[in-house]
Amino acid sequence: MAYFEHVNRIAYEGPKSTNPLAFKYYHPNEKVGDKTMAEHLRFSIAYWHTFTGDGSDPFGSGIHLRPWNHLKGMDLAKARVEAAFEFFEKLGVSYFCFHDVDIAPEGETLAETFKNLDEIVTMIKGYMKDSGVKLLWNTANMFTHPRFTHGAASSNHADVFAYTAAKVKKGLEIGKELGAENYVFWGGREGYETLLNTDMKLELDNLGRFFHMAVDYAKEIGFDGQFLIEPKPKEPTKHQYDFDVASGLAFLKTYELDPYFKFNIEANHATLAGHTFEHELRYARIHHMLGSVDANQGDLLLGWDTDEFPTDLYSTTLAMYEILKNGGLNPGGLNFDAKVRRASFQPEDLFYAHIAGMDSFAVGLKVAHNLIQDGVLDRVVEKRYQSFREGIGKDIVEGKTDFNKLAKYALKNDQIENESGHQELIKATINQYLLSAF
Amino acid sequence: MAYFEHVNRIAYEGPKSTNPLAFKYYHPNEKVGDKTMAEHLRFSIAYWHTFTGDGSDPFGSGIHLRPWNHLKGMDLAKARVEAAFEFFEKLGVSYFCFHDVDIAPEGETLAETFKNLDEIVTMIKGYMKDSGVKLLWNTANMFTHPRFTHGAASSNHADVFAYTAAKVKKGLEIGKELGAENYVFWGGREGYETLLNTDMKLELDNLGRFFHMAVDYAKEIGFDGQFLIEPKPKEPTKHQYDFDVASGLAFLKTYELDPYFKFNIEANHATLAGHTFEHELRYARIHHMLGSVDANQGDLLLGWDTDEFPTDLYSTTLAMYEILKNGGLNPGGLNFDAKVRRASFQPEDLFYAHIAGMDSFAVGLKVAHNLIQDGVLDRVVEKRYQSFREGIGKDIVEGKTDFNKLAKYALKNDQIENESGHQELIKATINQYLLSAF
Amino acid sequence: MAYFEHVNRIAYEGPKSTNPLAFKYYHPNEKVGDKTMAEHLRFSIAYWHTFTGDGSDPFGSGIHLRPWNHLKGMDLAKARVEAAFEFFEKLGVSYFCFHDVDIAPEGETLAETFKNLDEIVTMIKGYMKDSGVKLLWNTANMFTHPRFTHGAASSNHADVFAYTAAKVKKGLEIGKELGAENYVFWGGREGYETLLNTDMKLELDNLGRFFHMAVDYAKEIGFDGQFLIEPKPKEPTKHQYDFDVASGLAFLKTYELDPYFKFNIEANHATLAGHTFEHELRYARIHHMLGSVDANQGDLLLGWDTDEFPTDLYSTTLAMYEILKNGGLNPGGLNFDAKVRRASFQPEDLFYAHIAGMDSFAVGLKVAHNLIQDGVLDRVVEKRYQSFREGIGKDIVEGKTDFNKLAKYALKNDQIENESGHQELIKATINQYLLSAF
Amino acid sequence: MAYFEHVNRIAYEGPKSTNPLAFKYYHPNEKVGDKTMAEHLRFSIAYWHTFTGDGSDPFGSGIHLRPWNHLKGMDLAKARVEAAFEFFEKLGVSYFCFHDVDIAPEGETLAETFKNLDEIVTMIKGYMKDSGVKLLWNTANMFTHPRFTHGAASSNHADVFAYTAAKVKKGLEIGKELGAENYVFWGGREGYETLLNTDMKLELDNLGRFFHMAVDYAKEIGFDGQFLIEPKPKEPTKHQYDFDVASGLAFLKTYELDPYFKFNIEANHATLAGHTFEHELRYARIHHMLGSVDANQGDLLLGWDTDEFPTDLYSTTLAMYEILKNGGLNPGGLNFDAKVRRASFQPEDLFYAHIAGMDSFAVGLKVAHNLIQDGVLDRVVEKRYQSFREGIGKDIVEGKTDFNKLAKYALKNDQIENESGHQELIKATINQYLLSAF
Repeated sequence: MAYFEHVNRIAYEGPKSTNPLAFKYYHPNEKVGDKTMAEHLRFSIAYWHTFTGDGSDPFGSGIHLRPWNHLKGMDLAKARVEAAFEFFEKLGVSYFCFHDVDIAPEGETLAETFKNLDEIVTMIKGYMKDSGVKLLWNTANMFTHPRFTHGAASSNHADVFAYTAAKVKKGLEIGKELGAENYVFWGGREGYETLLNTDMKLELDNLGRFFHMAVDYAKEIGFDGQFLIEPKPKEPTKHQYDFDVASGLAFLKTYELDPYFKFNIEANHATLAGHTFEHELRYARIHHMLGSVDANQGDLLLGWDTDEFPTDLYSTTLAMYEILKNGGLNPGGLNFDAKVRRASFQPEDLFYAHIAGMDSFAVGLKVAHNLIQDGVLDRVVEKRYQSFREGIGKDIVEGKTDFNKLAKYALKNDQIENESGHQELIKATINQYLLSAF
Repeated sequence: MAYFEHVNRIAYEGPKSTNPLAFKYYHPNEKVGDKTMAEHLRFSIAYWHTFTGDGSDPFGSGIHLRPWNHLKGMDLAKARVEAAFEFFEKLGVSYFCFHDVDIAPEGETLAETFKNLDEIVTMIKGYMKDSGVKLLWNTANMFTHPRFTHGAASSNHADVFAYTAAKVKKGLEIGKELGAENYVFWGGREGYETLLNTDMKLELDNLGRFFHMAVDYAKEIGFDGQFLIEPKPKEPTKHQYDFDVASGLAFLKTYELDPYFKFNIEANHATLAGHTFEHELRYARIHHMLGSVDANQGDLLLGWDTDEFPTDLYSTTLAMYEILKNGGLNPGGLNFDAKVRRASFQPEDLFYAHIAGMDSFAVGLKVAHNLIQDGVLDRVVEKRYQSFREGIGKDIVEGKTDFNKLAKYALKNDQIENESGHQELIKATINQYLLSAF
Repeated sequence: MAYFEHVNRIAYEGPKSTNPLAFKYYHPNEKVGDKTMAEHLRFSIAYWHTFTGDGSDPFGSGIHLRPWNHLKGMDLAKARVEAAFEFFEKLGVSYFCFHDVDIAPEGETLAETFKNLDEIVTMIKGYMKDSGVKLLWNTANMFTHPRFTHGAASSNHADVFAYTAAKVKKGLEIGKELGAENYVFWGGREGYETLLNTDMKLELDNLGRFFHMAVDYAKEIGFDGQFLIEPKPKEPTKHQYDFDVASGLAFLKTYELDPYFKFNIEANHATLAGHTFEHELRYARIHHMLGSVDANQGDLLLGWDTDEFPTDLYSTTLAMYEILKNGGLNPGGLNFDAKVRRASFQPEDLFYAHIAGMDSFAVGLKVAHNLIQDGVLDRVVEKRYQSFREGIGKDIVEGKTDFNKLAKYALKNDQIENESGHQELIKATINQYLLSAF
Repeated sequence: MAYFEHVNRIAYEGPKSTNPLAFKYYHPNEKVGDKTMAEHLRFSIAYWHTFTGDGSDPFGSGIHLRPWNHLKGMDLAKARVEAAFEFFEKLGVSYFCFHDVDIAPEGETLAETFKNLDEIVTMIKGYMKDSGVKLLWNTANMFTHPRFTHGAASSNHADVFAYTAAKVKKGLEIGKELGAENYVFWGGREGYETLLNTDMKLELDNLGRFFHMAVDYAKEIGFDGQFLIEPKPKEPTKHQYDFDVASGLAFLKTYELDPYFKFNIEANHATLAGHTFEHELRYARIHHMLGSVDANQGDLLLGWDTDEFPTDLYSTTLAMYEILKNGGLNPGGLNFDAKVRRASFQPEDLFYAHIAGMDSFAVGLKVAHNLIQDGVLDRVVEKRYQSFREGIGKDIVEGKTDFNKLAKYALKNDQIENESGHQELIKATINQYLLSAF
């Protein structure tokens, strides 16, 4: 294995290091609370961006310089597996994620596609055993091939639905084979381009049926990974059914699927939907639906999914705050669904970018932990809502009142004084915690 | 009554009329299908924009020239009632909507506020009886006064919750007194400014409790109007809990409130949430939750709620398409939650603007009706999804299959040919229908 | 020539036609004012979208079914030329536009690339002569190949600057050879991905130098087509230097290039920049810089360049209004920089989409012409600004006053009454003109 | 003076301080390079947000608790002056800014308005002398009063133009009287609501004339403050003529006003225009047009001007980077055009918020200074563009080449290798500098 021969195993060198190939903040074995950083931050590498992607964009052809670029077909697929496990090891990351088409080329027939997959899965299984690296989740790509143009499980064409079922069936089998801890559904083209030719009701009903069959099949084969839905509002389609966590929840409840699913929340998908990352995490968390995270960041001045590596420390701090409050993500993790910029096309950029992301989440973890330890925000909240722990507020929370009683109370207590929310002061405090974390 | 003395009753004069104070397309008694235009288009006037608003904006003070501007307090309130009914009659509109504070001034105490309301409600009741004009819905303003700064039913202050209960209780009583056909909840500040000081779980739980109390109280007093939630994603707060119809549905289902509510959908709120107006209508419709409509339009290049009068004929056509497919909105209607531009400050602009809106919906009705009559889109959809009416598709829809059967089928049917969606052709057809409607 | 064998020459059949392969509103020889529709609407076909594009998107591979898909290299290039001229003729369109790489494959060396170009240009020249179809403009693609990743004339690499010069030099020579009426510069990657590694000053200076060299070389070889800059705010880069017409104008004036350039304005680029299409047209027009138009439309709820075929009649009407007020676009035209949706992948969709676009601009032309004939908006404007044609207003416009005189005047005339802008009434009038145009 | 009696002079207590009424990072006399923090950071208080604003928003009435709320008219105006200078002193800020209407109430007549102004200006002059606090800039509010509904210098009404002239004349006189170091023009309603009734050419010409008269009058009276234009793309109007710095520059060059003006750049206006704050600063800087800064921040998920206090340390760092590279802003400064959130309505929030902003800029200054000292970004840029310092690159920059020479060179040098832009690595480095600054 010598795909990244000039790169050694990435070591922790501390905040003052000027070595671009070293961690400055991520110290895997350092304890933060009762767990190590590595236990808190179940980092995962996204196979597609790191080993399959080529840096092309709608206006530019492939550009990434990769040591396997000269290969084709199954040889290419195998080289990528070797490179991937070299990369995992050098970075010290314990998890990875893939779509079926990332790891093996599609064949002329579905049978051939499955055969290719089987061969690579066997190879991966060996590497996993040797390295101890685990599969956070796998999934099936149901958006790239022209057959999925009108959707997959929400396609207007029944044969596409069947084809999709076959792919997900295979995906669940692979998940079981490789011990995947989760299985993800991102509805790449499950949505519509225009309402004018769309039967939204039938499409949603079919999606509901599809997920039930998936649940049934997982039971049948004894796959016990967590099922995850990954919301995204748009792109590639004009409108995607899993617009955000709330719309995903409405769907799951409508089709009585909520007991079987949690959410895989991506930062850039959150912002495309008009929400902050932490909003989506919080919303999922309080509904007991926070499953896993696609760790990246978007550019809020750009209207598409830029999938940047996460470096914004505010975002990593607020994300880790929700994750710690969730008791961690286990069996989920932090998957870097992030790609180096088109212009960062050299192999070492893959390391720089992952180091940047891992360090940023390590900082976020530390700041969030300190905020929780010191009860900074908890104290604010406790004080702010104290009126619901006594008197009329307690009655409200305990369901002991009604409009008649409340109106009577209000007529006597109608000169209300609120307290300021002190938002600016709280933000300044967050800055203090950030600047003093290391 | 002589507030608009230079304006006569607005008559239909047809498409060639150059009279700005005449309908060109809205012909109340003309039959479209088996109902008259007036029956289809249950237009309603928004009291706040038309009689209370003054044209101020965040950078400008009040500007609207209104014949009642010199009055104050209860005198002003009474003048507005007189003007309103003159306006309804001259425009030939049968419905109106109001918030409590639109019709009567707030007093020093809640008791005084209720007294003021009672006096004006009695007056309005008389005018309603005389004119035959009906109340589409009423609601309570729970966002303007400083006490609601941190929210109303989702406030951190229990006394505000109680105050809110008292106002909604009164609102339901007024609704019953005036025969309101619906009661609307728009969560003006039910959301948050920053997550940093917010207990989202408690706030949502409290909202759930509040709505249940409202349902109970309506039963108690025998108010049988339809309860409506009006989603809006943001503004005034950073994030509002009823972001869009889907998130509203998730909330209702979580708190088992969905049997009691439908949605009041506003065009400009839809676009602020990143959806088309017709998307929100469709989504609500197929979930049997489409209740009523706030008819306006936004400016998609501006990021706030502009509440413009609806003049975009594409938007009115696609809205009326969903409404006709819904079997109409009854007991809901088309409430013009729209305000004349700041620069349209003369009294006659109120007429011009409402005429523009009514004519635009009349056009939309006609085009949508013709599209449905000719089966234009229905045929497209029927053909597009035909594979689900036979063979494997039928099995899918009827729940007679599973992943094993589907995979077996797919392995034999893996060379799939899709049909084009022909979006451009369909759009050209819509244009033809639009241009030939009158 | 039999690439579109099932399609006959597209004929005008009038508004009631149900033939999808017929014009309903575009009647080439019909007079609108003193010119025919064809003279007003100098339609052009975009070679890239129609003959080179494959329907791929960031999440999907090529899908368009085209009769030339089985070919490669120069054979493919030649087939496309044949297909193109068949398409131009069947559609009755007199202009086309291309980038160098659209018409001929790039070679291993720049010399080979030029050789390929020469061969195809000779072929095209023959077809142009035979068909009478003309070249509205050509341009050089300086964004797809990896060498242009950091920009072209604004690259950080001097060799890329030189390479770019060679391509534009060749482009100007081809333009001269084929009688191109314009030459377009769209700065695909002339911008930056991040300011952190960017010398904006040097890049802009280099761009300025580059354009001066282009102007000089055009003079040298006697190419007298109009030079056009096409603004776009972002995508593919984070920020593009020609953000909009105003920023383009600032650039041209800073580098004293404004005498040599006009703007090629694209509807979807306007909206991505936060402007309406008509704003960009108006702004260019009043600065005498409106040169040509890329006729398409975007989806304002999506944040990327969707390049849809123009079907919004409001947009085509307001665009044609500006164009008529500009005295037409000649030597510019209306180039359909628009692509069929990914899901509209059948060959006939190319016809449906262009017919939709041509009909939509024909409607826009007619409505705009009628508005101008009847002086609808001119009368509004004349009345609105009348105060500048007499008294103090006249003094202002004629430069005969100063702050001292104006202040003296204002102190005596400080109780000002404005007139309403009547925006809603004007919009209703536009609807009337639209609905009665055919 | 006892408006903020519970607040002492704000002192520097260092990063570990838990005192909300202390600076943690802003240490006025600490040297950063060859200047003190106070010299670098010419902070200014915005009179309107801090002393005039009441926290109202489009959906809510005034809420801010201020010790002067019980006063009216000139008494209120005088109380605010006293409170303001107490506030300046307690915060240790040396500059302030105001609009005319912020400091004195408008009268029934323009003459009376001027009289009110004169009285307050005299009072302010005394306080300035006593305290040493200086006027960074003043301006005239030409957007709040109904007379400005259609614009001010770009109004359709000549009398409004005259009135505007009178106000600006007075503003320049006040500026001279108080020794203002700059005079700002923010075109609040200098733009349009709809193109349909707008003569854009006349409006821009009039704006050009107006600015020339202002320049002339300043000369006449010997006012030598720097003239500043403050761009904003929209809000309150649909489109504002000074959309961003680039469009402002195009305007100034078109009307040959660029020698007399620089830009006052506001963070939130930048983002509303689709740019980063640092983009606008950089663009202005390299055109030698960076004059002053309105220091605030927006919420990129909200579409209006939120005018938040700046707490994002990335933004303050990149802003200070541009400012240091500009050699500072003198005679401009950092004006906190920021308002406490509606929910931060208590008087102490004014201190918390300004401390948050001042500390954030102190951090930004320190990080930016360190980045410059260590040549972090300069080295990246130097290396990246080195090809323009030798060979063909040098020829390009020195204007010694042309398309013929470049093409000859390119044909021989057509296999180009670029270097990665390493964006992720640079961002990680910025994080290191941020985390180690204190």
